[in-house]
Amino acid sequence: MANIQEVAQKAGVSVATVSRVLNNNSTVSPSTRLKVENAIKELNYEPSMLGRNLRNSESRLLLVLIPSISNPFYTEIINGIQNTAIAHHYNILLCETNSNPEREDIYFNMVKNKLADGVISMDPTVNMQKLIELAENHSIILCSEYDESNVIPYVSIDNELAAYHAVKHLIKIGNEKIALINSDEKFLYARQRRSGYERALAEFNLPLRKEWIYNTTQLDFQDGVQAMRMLLKLKEKPSAIFAVSDTLAIGALKEMNASGLKAPDDIAVVGFDNISFSNMTNPTLTTVAQPMYKMGCTAATMLINSIHENKVESILLDHELIIRESTMG
Amino acid sequence: MANIQEVAQKAGVSVATVSRVLNNNSTVSPSTRLKVENAIKELNYEPSMLGRNLRNSESRLLLVLIPSISNPFYTEIINGIQNTAIAHHYNILLCETNSNPEREDIYFNMVKNKLADGVISMDPTVNMQKLIELAENHSIILCSEYDESNVIPYVSIDNELAAYHAVKHLIKIGNEKIALINSDEKFLYARQRRSGYERALAEFNLPLRKEWIYNTTQLDFQDGVQAMRMLLKLKEKPSAIFAVSDTLAIGALKEMNASGLKAPDDIAVVGFDNISFSNMTNPTLTTVAQPMYKMGCTAATMLINSIHENKVESILLDHELIIRESTMG
Repeated sequence: MANIQEVAQKAGVSVATVSRVLNNNSTVSPSTRLKVENAIKELNYEPSMLGRNLRNSESRLLLVLIPSISNPFYTEIINGIQNTAIAHHYNILLCETNSNPEREDIYFNMVKNKLADGVISMDPTVNMQKLIELAENHSIILCSEYDESNVIPYVSIDNELAAYHAVKHLIKIGNEKIALINSDEKFLYARQRRSGYERALAEFNLPLRKEWIYNTTQLDFQDGVQAMRMLLKLKEKPSAIFAVSDTLAIGALKEMNASGLKAPDDIAVVGFDNISFSNMTNPTLTTVAQPMYKMGCTAATMLINSIHENKVESILLDHELIIRESTMG
Repeated sequence: MANIQEVAQKAGVSVATVSRVLNNNSTVSPSTRLKVENAIKELNYEPSMLGRNLRNSESRLLLVLIPSISNPFYTEIINGIQNTAIAHHYNILLCETNSNPEREDIYFNMVKNKLADGVISMDPTVNMQKLIELAENHSIILCSEYDESNVIPYVSIDNELAAYHAVKHLIKIGNEKIALINSDEKFLYARQRRSGYERALAEFNLPLRKEWIYNTTQLDFQDGVQAMRMLLKLKEKPSAIFAVSDTLAIGALKEMNASGLKAPDDIAVVGFDNISFSNMTNPTLTTVAQPMYKMGCTAATMLINSIHENKVESILLDHELIIRESTMG
C-alpha cells in the first residue's frame, strides 16, 4: 500500500502539506488540496488513523458500559448517547460487561491506553472503586445507576420519588395489600425504590409485610415469572404488585395469565421503565417512564464536556407515571 | 504523566526491556519483570496502546454493524459474537448504523484506518458495493443478511425453507387463507421468505392473493399493529398469518386483542426469530427459531479466521419451528 511520502511525491508537494490536507487544515489552497486528493485516490492511500491519533492523542471514541444488551431499557438510552456522540463527531463503543470484572478491566485498559476518550457506565455491577481511580485521570459519567459519593458525575432520575408515585397510584385505586418485586438490593436503585415503596405504605398506614417483598437476582422476564409464582403461593396474596422493571412486571403478568388471573381485577401491576414491549402486552402495562432518550443525550453531552475539561454537574431528570390497563382495567 | 524512558530509568533497565515486559515477552527474568512492574506502579505509567498497536498493526477490535439495537433479534447473536471474540482476546465495537450511509462511512473508515481488524455486518441496508470494495483489503463477514454473489463469506439460515416450513404448519392445522406480513422486499431475506410462503401455498393448491400480502417499512411492533389493522379491514379476511419477524407478529397479536379476536381460534399467527419476548405474549407465539447465539459464534470464528488469513467458507445453519399457543390453542 502507498505511504504518505509517495502521495507527496505524486502530488508534487511536501509530506507536511499532505498531512495538512488529511487534517482538513484551512491553510491549504483549493488547487493544492485537489492535487493531493487526486494523488490519494490514484494511489489508493489509506492514512493510518492510529498514527494520527497518536499525535493529537484523541481517539474520538466513547465507551459505553452496559451490563447486558438483553434488557430493552438500555436501547433508548443508547440511541440518545449515539445520536449526541455522532453530532459531536464521536463514535461509541458499546461494551457489554455481563457483570464480568475481567471484561471490565479490558475496557478500562482501553481508556488508560487512550484507545477511547471517555466512559459512560450504565453498569450497576461496575467496580466503583476502580472506576473512581480511573476517573482521576479520565472522563467518566455514570448514567442511570450512580454512586452516592458523587465523586463521578451522573445523570439519573429520583428513584425513591418515582417508586413512591407508583405505589401511591396503586393505593389511590383501592389497594391495601401491595407487594414489591425488587431486584438485588446491592444496587442503589433497588434500595431507593424500596424506600419509595415503604414511604408510600407508611404514609397511608398500610402493612409492610416481609413475605410481600421478593428479590430477584436478575431482571429477565423469567425472574418475574418466578417472583409471581412465589407470591401466588402465599396464604394471604397481595392485591397489587409494584415491580422495579418492566421485564419483571411482564413476567409477572405472564404467570398471572397462566394461572387464569386477570390484571387489574385480580391483581393490579405496575412496572418501571416504559420499554417498548410494555405497550404490547395484554393487558398493557402501567409503568414509570424514565426519559431514556434524554438521559442518553444528557450523559453524552456531559461526557463530551468533561473531555473538553469543562466542569460537569450531576443531573436528576423527571420521571412520569404512564397509566395503562394493568391498573385501570 | 510518566513516559517509558522514566520507567526504564527508575527500574534501572533499558527501554527495550520495559517494552518486553509490556508485551509479555517471556525472555524477561522474573526479577527484572518485578522491578519494571514496580516502577510502572510507582510512576503511575500508562503505556499508549495506540503506539503499541501502530507497531504490530493490530487493534484487536472487531466492528459489528447492526441496523438498530431496538430489535431483540440481534441480542443473542451479539452475545455469541462477543463471547467468541473475548475468548480470542478481541473486543467488539457495536455500531448502530440506523441505516444511515454517513454512519456507515465512519465505521468503514475506522477499518481503513486500522482502528479495527475486521467487520461483521448484520445490516441488511448496508451499501453492499462499498462493503465489497472494503473486503478487497480487509476481513468482512456477513451475518444473517447476505449477498447472493457470495463475494463476502456469510453465515445465515435457509430463509426460503424456514418460511416454507412455517406456512406448511399453518396449512397442516387446517388453514387455507394465509396472509403474509413481510418487510420491505428490497431485503434478500424478505424475498426469500416470500418465496417459501408462495411455494407452500402452491404445493397445496391454495390461493395466492395480492391483498393478503402486506409489506411494512420497518420491523417495529407498531408496524405489525398497522399491518393487522389493514388485513382486518379486508372483505375476505385471512384465517392465518405468517409474519417475517416476531416484532411484527406481536404487533399483529396486539391488534387482534384490541379487536376482540383470539389466536388461534379467529386467526392463527406464526412469527420468526424466537426473541425472548415471544414466550411472554398472551397467547405465546409460534415462531421460527434461528440459532442466533450459534450464528454469532460462527460469524466471530469466521472473522477471526479471515483476519488470520485462513480460507473462510459461507455457512447455512439449521432453523427450527417452535410451536406455541398462537397456532395450537
